[in-house]
Amino acid sequence: MDHLYEKTTKTTDIFKGKVIDLKVEEVELPNGKTSKREIVKHPGAVAILPITKEGKLVLVRQYRKALDKVIVEIPAGKLEKGEEPLASAKRELEEETGYKADYLDFIVSFYTSPGFADEIIHLYITDKLKKGQVAPDEDEFLDIIEVSLEEAEEMVKNQTIHDAKTVFAVQYMKLRELGKK
Amino acid sequence: MDHLYEKTTKTTDIFKGKVIDLKVEEVELPNGKTSKREIVKHPGAVAILPITKEGKLVLVRQYRKALDKVIVEIPAGKLEKGEEPLASAKRELEEETGYKADYLDFIVSFYTSPGFADEIIHLYITDKLKKGQVAPDEDEFLDIIEVSLEEAEEMVKNQTIHDAKTVFAVQYMKLRELGKK
Repeated sequence: MDHLYEKTTKTTDIFKGKVIDLKVEEVELPNGKTSKREIVKHPGAVAILPITKEGKLVLVRQYRKALDKVIVEIPAGKLEKGEEPLASAKRELEEETGYKADYLDFIVSFYTSPGFADEIIHLYITDKLKKGQVAPDEDEFLDIIEVSLEEAEEMVKNQTIHDAKTVFAVQYMKLRELGKK
Repeated sequence: MDHLYEKTTKTTDIFKGKVIDLKVEEVELPNGKTSKREIVKHPGAVAILPITKEGKLVLVRQYRKALDKVIVEIPAGKLEKGEEPLASAKRELEEETGYKADYLDFIVSFYTSPGFADEIIHLYITDKLKKGQVAPDEDEFLDIIEVSLEEAEEMVKNQTIHDAKTVFAVQYMKLRELGKK
């Protein structure tokens, strides 16, 4: 057992929602004292870095109630129950952008907020886009835009792109000189 | 008003905690239908990319109850009430690593989970580290390690580094060829 481990002594379920659950765990700290941890459970998510034949990055504009503003993000969505990340990524890509791809390459997975949530995002990339069919969720409204790497970098600077996965994706393109003709 | 905007028609407070609050908002969608949004409120956070004179990245090993495992992260912490991000970053750097810095350079801010939370992380970098005094929070236990960029990249691959801000930080170093002698 790692010396940093915290043992849970009591779990209280606070909320079970459509997207997230919340619980509070009482823990025994490494020094024997106790504390409480507030924990959000999330089903996990996928995100896709789609690059067109013209070298443009496909992005979605979406209103985010938690932020009370519209931000621009790479296409992403929650895992459905029992769904594999790769299948989920293919589904979300087509539903949100109208592009589909037979193959996606895995980039990396990361936890978004390990201090209070277990959300993990599995990130994929493709530059083999074919025409598919847009089909957003019934409570999901978004605009699709296609931008050059330079435009995406400018959107990071002016905080139009303002979330971790998308800032990471733009930097990933820059590092690998993707999106250039 | 942006055509993607969702109007809140009712807010229900579910939980007020030590770190996060949870509320559910009933919203009117752009097409006039209604839906519910589960929203976690968070005070915001800072993170620091500290590079030693020897070109090593300073990281902390920490048990994360939400994940039930120890992961390795760049130093980070929540904003205290009324605290400016830069002051918070200086404080967290010293408390968690025992290094301090008179100046930090701002890199970027990003939301970690815009789908359900308003947490924002303000990220800073410094390679001007001086000896300070470790002073973690009373319920915070961590190990400090110093690794080369190559070691950090290996830790991303084997998922020892497994969170968004730290994966971003390692890629940031790589892109700018930081951490090299």
